[in-house]
Amino acid sequence: MGRLTGRDPSLLRRINSAVVLRALRAADGPPTLSDLAQVAELSRPTVEGVVEQLVEAGLAAEAAVASGDVRRQGRPARRYRFRAEAGHLLGIEIGPHRVAAVLSDLCGRRLGTVGRAVSEQATADERLERARAVVAELLRTCEVPRSTLRAVGVGSPGIVEADGTVRLCTALPGWTGLPLGERLRRSFRCPVLVENDANAAALAEHWKGAAVGVDDAVFVLAGLSPGAGSLIGGRLHRGFGGAAGEIGALHLLGREATPEHLLSTTGEPLHPLDEAAVARVFALAREGDERARQAVERFIRRLVHDVAALVLALDPELVVVGGWATGLDGVLDPLRRELERYCLRPPRVALSLLGGEAIATGALRLALDHVEEELFTVEGAVAR
Amino acid sequence: MGRLTGRDPSLLRRINSAVVLRALRAADGPPTLSDLAQVAELSRPTVEGVVEQLVEAGLAAEAAVASGDVRRQGRPARRYRFRAEAGHLLGIEIGPHRVAAVLSDLCGRRLGTVGRAVSEQATADERLERARAVVAELLRTCEVPRSTLRAVGVGSPGIVEADGTVRLCTALPGWTGLPLGERLRRSFRCPVLVENDANAAALAEHWKGAAVGVDDAVFVLAGLSPGAGSLIGGRLHRGFGGAAGEIGALHLLGREATPEHLLSTTGEPLHPLDEAAVARVFALAREGDERARQAVERFIRRLVHDVAALVLALDPELVVVGGWATGLDGVLDPLRRELERYCLRPPRVALSLLGGEAIATGALRLALDHVEEELFTVEGAVAR
Repeated sequence: MGRLTGRDPSLLRRINSAVVLRALRAADGPPTLSDLAQVAELSRPTVEGVVEQLVEAGLAAEAAVASGDVRRQGRPARRYRFRAEAGHLLGIEIGPHRVAAVLSDLCGRRLGTVGRAVSEQATADERLERARAVVAELLRTCEVPRSTLRAVGVGSPGIVEADGTVRLCTALPGWTGLPLGERLRRSFRCPVLVENDANAAALAEHWKGAAVGVDDAVFVLAGLSPGAGSLIGGRLHRGFGGAAGEIGALHLLGREATPEHLLSTTGEPLHPLDEAAVARVFALAREGDERARQAVERFIRRLVHDVAALVLALDPELVVVGGWATGLDGVLDPLRRELERYCLRPPRVALSLLGGEAIATGALRLALDHVEEELFTVEGAVAR
Repeated sequence: MGRLTGRDPSLLRRINSAVVLRALRAADGPPTLSDLAQVAELSRPTVEGVVEQLVEAGLAAEAAVASGDVRRQGRPARRYRFRAEAGHLLGIEIGPHRVAAVLSDLCGRRLGTVGRAVSEQATADERLERARAVVAELLRTCEVPRSTLRAVGVGSPGIVEADGTVRLCTALPGWTGLPLGERLRRSFRCPVLVENDANAAALAEHWKGAAVGVDDAVFVLAGLSPGAGSLIGGRLHRGFGGAAGEIGALHLLGREATPEHLLSTTGEPLHPLDEAAVARVFALAREGDERARQAVERFIRRLVHDVAALVLALDPELVVVGGWATGLDGVLDPLRRELERYCLRPPRVALSLLGGEAIATGALRLALDHVEEELFTVEGAVAR
């Protein structure tokens, strides 16, 4: 039932504030109060009151007057701008081999990034310590005080519950059962949002990668422990228990070989987390090594099967493949060809545009979504 | 951006009308104008005006006064009720072997149903003619004039586009490319909504079957041409091109045998639409026939694979299996067992409660959703 309630004066203030803030941020150049009143469809006195509050809260500031305006007769109208520098956001990737963080202002503009290797055998404590060190280095380098952080997003492998606890993760030692959100919240005074890595990457490709403008897309994190993140109608589909897209188990169904076996050129399986060995096999295959070529072929057949299952279940417009920096480009053509054979309506297939940055960028997007919701949208105005 | 616009007086009238109508229908007993004013949070004169309009439009009526009220002193307050009989809804199933229709009032209360067999070799014209005959018989039996129909829902195999055209259907002769919605609209003066059969069945199980109260559920229409319908957050997930859940092609991936081969006890494949032969194989297996038992086992293994792919992709709370009236109960236990092995978070598995009525019932739900949206919700009140 769509009903207007709006009898609460503080709610009305929040609505007006959100509307003005949004208009302020969306404006091409710094708007005057009259400009804002027009865009926000509010009276000028109301806008004036709201802008005063926003300036007080540090979210808006008077804009420097352009020299062209000064020459005009009389005192020029004051102009205002959104203070994107009023707060900062962090996106953190905690992966099997790498911990990385990216910092942005309140508009999501990137201010810096730091990445460090971490051993695949590191304990949970060591991995968390590495993440904290990366964040500290990034804040120091960018000269941003920790107290200005408004939200932190985290992307990490495994099934992640709503409170940030890792329900199940086979990729990182000690990760299953880890209250990752709670542990990281000790280092920050702002909200910390934890998301599955493939889900975060899907958000990133939708934000500024291969899926810009595509609201029904699947991101496949191809790897020795493959996973997928799905956007449906522009929103992340997490599933009832946060396990949607965990296609890594699919190969068990046919009692088929694991990716570690498929990509082996020696008969011995690769180490389940040794993605450097994977890169070597892909490189050998490109150089014409017959056994490597066969291994890659087996692996691609497996990947095609996993992706086809996802595509038949979800019917996305686009499949984005990412995960390994090199070697994946050879996957696209066979994937397209096979999907055309098996799918009633084959989706487009594209390579990730963000590569190794996808997970941290998606984590940043999570943080940005959080503050945008806080600042720019008005929940409760409409009862359903 | 959630903003209140509501400057349009006709929009305000629509909002008030929807709110009162909803309160009227939701009331336990027939409410007075004062009751309605309280529930709808509107002034009594406003409610009086709205109810007057609703009575004029035939959607509300004065309720008969209970004898208890008459004995009280003074004239009792008038009471009103929603006239569910003011219009009617149809749900139609058009399947390979059967055409059925169910009729209801505006509250979705079932007034009657008619089902007739149709040959799997029938042409599209013959099948449509059969559907029209079934509808005519149903309306005649229930003594409901065709002019009172407010919406018609249709469930049928295949990928169905938004306008009701069948994009692809391997199960019914002449169905691919058929403008099914357009053809049926000639027989009705109200909106006709066409939906894939498994999708319709999913809606039905959610409305009054095994998935009541479960918003993340997958309905598997197990058959020689299996399909699935998925609810995500209580809404149907159709996919970008309406092909979501078309898992019938999954067996092609492993170049594995088709269901017709899997269920054969003779080495010769069953006819792809001969579901009576399937029932015979299931019955033989129950009686202990070894070859039938093996055939059913092969078939179940295949079904488990298809369902597991769906479950890994979507992570639903519940899987409902339906499609065949008999034999399917033997599928549940192996399905549960296997899903527990392969899925990180196995869903509950249940048998359809609606059986052969699921598709027509879901088609009726589509029609009901349409009139509910028309009558009870207010779009445009909130600009996003």
